[in-house]
Amino acid sequence: MTGTLYVVGVGPGDPELLTLKAMRILKQVHCICVPKGREEGSSLALSIAEGVVDLKGKEIIEAFFPMKKTRAGVKASQNHAAADGRTAVVDNELEDRWNETVVNILKRLNQGIDVAFITIGDPAIYSTFFYLYDRLLALAPGMRIEIVPGVSSITAAASRACLSLGLADEKIAIVPATYAGDLSRMTSEFDTIVLMKVYRVFDEIVKALTAAGLAGNATYISRAGMREEAVIRNLKDVRKEDLNYFSLIIIRRPSKP
Amino acid sequence: MTGTLYVVGVGPGDPELLTLKAMRILKQVHCICVPKGREEGSSLALSIAEGVVDLKGKEIIEAFFPMKKTRAGVKASQNHAAADGRTAVVDNELEDRWNETVVNILKRLNQGIDVAFITIGDPAIYSTFFYLYDRLLALAPGMRIEIVPGVSSITAAASRACLSLGLADEKIAIVPATYAGDLSRMTSEFDTIVLMKVYRVFDEIVKALTAAGLAGNATYISRAGMREEAVIRNLKDVRKEDLNYFSLIIIRRPSKP
Repeated sequence: MTGTLYVVGVGPGDPELLTLKAMRILKQVHCICVPKGREEGSSLALSIAEGVVDLKGKEIIEAFFPMKKTRAGVKASQNHAAADGRTAVVDNELEDRWNETVVNILKRLNQGIDVAFITIGDPAIYSTFFYLYDRLLALAPGMRIEIVPGVSSITAAASRACLSLGLADEKIAIVPATYAGDLSRMTSEFDTIVLMKVYRVFDEIVKALTAAGLAGNATYISRAGMREEAVIRNLKDVRKEDLNYFSLIIIRRPSKP
Repeated sequence: MTGTLYVVGVGPGDPELLTLKAMRILKQVHCICVPKGREEGSSLALSIAEGVVDLKGKEIIEAFFPMKKTRAGVKASQNHAAADGRTAVVDNELEDRWNETVVNILKRLNQGIDVAFITIGDPAIYSTFFYLYDRLLALAPGMRIEIVPGVSSITAAASRACLSLGLADEKIAIVPATYAGDLSRMTSEFDTIVLMKVYRVFDEIVKALTAAGLAGNATYISRAGMREEAVIRNLKDVRKEDLNYFSLIIIRRPSKP
């Protein structure tokens, strides 16, 4: 007998943004796996789920993925994952942690226990799950897996700011904030640019946007749909204390004359 | 007394992918506005909603937006919308239709009646609502509006194909299929490219992907989460009859050596 692994997006923060399907599965399963590693991410996914499902009596597996530097000087958890055949350069500790989680999950599945791996937002958008996926497949190629999409923080942010990300034949780019230097070139091609994880390089982004004449086209959104949400239409009004892991900037290209 | 306009994403097709919030609002409101114009889109949004909410007794406003050529030879409904200040070149009939819908919505709001404008997927991702938004604001600048995000067809497709759209520092581009000719250049910059609305130019896309050496990196997904869903990993297996409005292709860049 084999259980099913459900990879469940729990949405951006507001428990009401869970899907009916996510709620049903979380009620149904007896074991929930929660990724850890980001400062705020881990407990948040669980607390979102707890907002609508009583988790009492369920087994919670906490999968801790430390964010640490590898020898190559790159954050281990930020390397390309092995999913779709890419090589992940990770140190031994992280590798051990991943394997531990894989073994934990497969053990339950082999006992016929369904497991839900929960992740903030949508599983396909920068979620930790895909770091495990190839490892799971390697050990259990026939495993039963279902990925349940959720509302991503990106569209939640657009909603809160009443912005469209794209209309008709428009082009959308979603890029980590470290690429802010390319903004000028990117806006010549894309109608919308979503800059992710802006909190660490916010000053550089403001400089790059100003230099590109795009500061007036940028909207800052933090913690969309969460209690401490902020939508700030003038980047000058963003204070240091507003910046956090869940901040992003949406840039709409100026209209053509 | 003024009602609230809720713009509600009902997800990609499976009624279970509605959010709890969407369900609550659709149960609550007495008036639902459904955009029409796409061959399949209009009734689909309503039938998704009907999958979880009893709409009996509610007023349904059908907002018909015909897809027709303007003098410029561009499909009217596919022009840049006026939202965020862009100029929309539309013919008089379409303009009349839009204004009719705007008036219909505002009439209810002014009577204190809440209205839900429903849209497939997520409202920020290529939805018709933003064609109306500026017109609504121009007539009722103080209107109460809330946009409720939904699961987009893009992440639903990625989920069904068990694909990540982006990990860590990866870059994602979402572009209409008409840009398939740029694929080779785009994959030098982006890790993932999502080609939307591939059904009309499918043969050209296959040619462009093959020329760029990317055919093996492309996954075709149609009607993700709907009953007639298809996930096809070899583009050669896609038949003419599989092609439809809800088809997209996800291209993951080949791993670097």
